[in-house]
Amino acid sequence: MQSQQVPDELLNLRTQIDRIDEEMLDLLAERFRVTAKVGELKAKNGLESVDPVREHEKLERLRTLAEARSVNSEFILDLFQAIFDEVVKNHRAYLEKA
Amino acid sequence: MQSQQVPDELLNLRTQIDRIDEEMLDLLAERFRVTAKVGELKAKNGLESVDPVREHEKLERLRTLAEARSVNSEFILDLFQAIFDEVVKNHRAYLEKA
Repeated sequence: MQSQQVPDELLNLRTQIDRIDEEMLDLLAERFRVTAKVGELKAKNGLESVDPVREHEKLERLRTLAEARSVNSEFILDLFQAIFDEVVKNHRAYLEKA
Repeated sequence: MQSQQVPDELLNLRTQIDRIDEEMLDLLAERFRVTAKVGELKAKNGLESVDPVREHEKLERLRTLAEARSVNSEFILDLFQAIFDEVVKNHRAYLEKA
């Protein structure tokens, strides 16, 4: 019985993971749509792509949120830093095309 | 007027980004709870932490989902690879403690 039960339980957990990953992708797509608007707004008004104060505050807030959820905050900060870097890359590409 | 309008619009967009990030953190926390269960189940049944077939299928599915959302799929694959690596690290830490 064990060998039958294990794959079912594992498949069930994998279905949950797939659902979570699809929701994360939806949120990332939405986030890039919003940051594209931020990029356009900054370009139109001659503002810098990177705001170090905002970025620092965001990372500190993310650290607090990660710790409150018992998630490895160092991992979360690295993950969001990669997202921020991608946003800045997109902003700069937009500026070069403009 | 312009200098007043810009910060308001930017603040509004930043509020949207902060809400998205908090939802992403909730999903990541949920994902780590589910993968911890997967790790326990695999350990209990002597299964390997990494399933290369599942991982390859997941990455291909994520590529399709990213492209359908017009999000840079290379970036998405790197991001999820970092998440998978963190999961495997957690699995191995769990096995060492067990």
